[in-house]
Amino acid sequence: MATVLSVSGSPSASSRTGRLLRHLDQRLAVQGHEVIPLDVRTIPAEALLGADFRHPAIVEATELFARADGVIVGTPVYKASYSGVLKALLDLLPQYALTGKTVLPLATGGSTAHVLAIDYALRPVLNSMGAAHIVQGWFTLDKDITAHEDGSVTVAPSATEALTHVVDQFSAALGRTPYLAAAS
Amino acid sequence: MATVLSVSGSPSASSRTGRLLRHLDQRLAVQGHEVIPLDVRTIPAEALLGADFRHPAIVEATELFARADGVIVGTPVYKASYSGVLKALLDLLPQYALTGKTVLPLATGGSTAHVLAIDYALRPVLNSMGAAHIVQGWFTLDKDITAHEDGSVTVAPSATEALTHVVDQFSAALGRTPYLAAAS
Amino acid sequence: MATVLSVSGSPSASSRTGRLLRHLDQRLAVQGHEVIPLDVRTIPAEALLGADFRHPAIVEATELFARADGVIVGTPVYKASYSGVLKALLDLLPQYALTGKTVLPLATGGSTAHVLAIDYALRPVLNSMGAAHIVQGWFTLDKDITAHEDGSVTVAPSATEALTHVVDQFSAALGRTPYLAAAS
Amino acid sequence: MATVLSVSGSPSASSRTGRLLRHLDQRLAVQGHEVIPLDVRTIPAEALLGADFRHPAIVEATELFARADGVIVGTPVYKASYSGVLKALLDLLPQYALTGKTVLPLATGGSTAHVLAIDYALRPVLNSMGAAHIVQGWFTLDKDITAHEDGSVTVAPSATEALTHVVDQFSAALGRTPYLAAAS
Repeated sequence: MATVLSVSGSPSASSRTGRLLRHLDQRLAVQGHEVIPLDVRTIPAEALLGADFRHPAIVEATELFARADGVIVGTPVYKASYSGVLKALLDLLPQYALTGKTVLPLATGGSTAHVLAIDYALRPVLNSMGAAHIVQGWFTLDKDITAHEDGSVTVAPSATEALTHVVDQFSAALGRTPYLAAAS
Repeated sequence: MATVLSVSGSPSASSRTGRLLRHLDQRLAVQGHEVIPLDVRTIPAEALLGADFRHPAIVEATELFARADGVIVGTPVYKASYSGVLKALLDLLPQYALTGKTVLPLATGGSTAHVLAIDYALRPVLNSMGAAHIVQGWFTLDKDITAHEDGSVTVAPSATEALTHVVDQFSAALGRTPYLAAAS
Repeated sequence: MATVLSVSGSPSASSRTGRLLRHLDQRLAVQGHEVIPLDVRTIPAEALLGADFRHPAIVEATELFARADGVIVGTPVYKASYSGVLKALLDLLPQYALTGKTVLPLATGGSTAHVLAIDYALRPVLNSMGAAHIVQGWFTLDKDITAHEDGSVTVAPSATEALTHVVDQFSAALGRTPYLAAAS
Repeated sequence: MATVLSVSGSPSASSRTGRLLRHLDQRLAVQGHEVIPLDVRTIPAEALLGADFRHPAIVEATELFARADGVIVGTPVYKASYSGVLKALLDLLPQYALTGKTVLPLATGGSTAHVLAIDYALRPVLNSMGAAHIVQGWFTLDKDITAHEDGSVTVAPSATEALTHVVDQFSAALGRTPYLAAAS
């Protein structure tokens, strides 16, 4: 099966974005994929902001991207776009760090008015990094994610249905991308 | 093999966009695909602008999209975005007319300053129509397309290399998308 | 006072977009502005789609833009963006047809999920045309616009408040733009 | 005269973006404006990435934005968009931190292929923060900025002409925005 890097771009330790990704990771693991969680906020701040590509934490993150067949990119929507913290990590990766990879873009936010941030803001960045296949993503309303004390979440039924659909499309697409590494 | 609808969104009869697409169609045909050319400017103007989904020309175009496994969407860049003529056709198609389909976005223009119009303007529209897989596209400079009197074109070597690459990625991806029709 | 061109980009004769603009025109007229309504759907289809800049209807539209101090650009949201009909008109105008002008972008649609189409899709096009000042726009939900048999509309109170605010900002900005014609 | 906050969003100490902004600051100062330089990279990394709105460095930055009549937002283009470091700061400001303010967006990069990042990526974020007037911006090629040992820069003549034009438009617009604070 495939190796999936599951990246949460939230700066907050108690973020719904991070918890939602860890929740979805379980479904991919059950399907047989190796899932590697990466919370951008756990990368040392001076590494993310220091513009130093050789910092050990950045080298390690770069290797995680290089190893992955697929990448989930999850972000809260702030100011009509992805988080600066997420972009700070992407800025430090090689220009074509997503070449040959399948990508699932996910976002969370307080209002449906921000739904288009996935397609108008996040996707162009992922495309510029050479992604082979960015599958349909999903925007989940904060109110549809209930966090529990143990770190787990309950997702509202309507959101669960949509998320299950996009995760399964991502999973199916993972099996069909190796060719692209050769083609590019 | 697959059925490919190759859509030129140029309003001009002598457009480089249209000629470039017909040139690329040949490569796909040689690879065994059935290629159906569609020049938006040949659709009656009153059908495109009349907001009438039942006009025979719109019904026919809708059926062409429905039949296709893959769609090439080519447009000149005007005012930092796709052509209005192209969008007028897309506006008349069902909301999810690209569900389950593989899409190759192409653009032509006079300046490299417009390269990002593919990813920031055209792709979000194609995504909103449910496209299963929008492969990496390509922006070709007008000056790299030399039109001949017989309607054929010669493409500059550097552009030919890039176009061949994205067309072949599109062709390869076509073989892997049928699953998505079932998944959605 | 200023001359305002109020452009409805809806292809439909009974569109909420068009009726909403005519409703707002009245407020600007009461404030002393000369308001010129322009419904793109009344321009002959063959002129809009024929790529003929010299067609009398296009020449006339170009002159209306040239005369205006301010332009309201209203569009329904289709496929996550502005209408193709509107863009077909903009495509036929000079590249810098909005130089020195104040612009108010407005959109209507069925879902708040399309709110960002104004800022991510429409504004970049208006910017590419040299607009001096694009004031804050507004997205009005279809359900907040009730059409009457005589062509007039009633707008829901919450939407009225927001629309009044952006129209008055536009009106105020109109008085301050002449300088820019000289500066550019 | 007006108070201008001049924000460089580059993570690099030797960045062309930062030096270009300091160069342009001089022109605004000569015109009588109070110019306050802010290099995002000088804000402690843990403050920028810690999602802590009450950190003294964030409180101070927020106050600088609140005091300013105009804001220059300069960024290198990375991965087809603004820098993550810049966005990390914007994320920590109040949602409407730019209400009533005049904004000049500037970008630097290695290729003209990234020109549209200003209008498609940066402007929508600035709009979401309530900016009253975002004037026409400018993208300067790295090769047109020559850095000297003393930290100063020489800008190529063609770029100088364009930058002078947009800075002067910004300066002129600064005199006309106070009204908007009252209107919103």
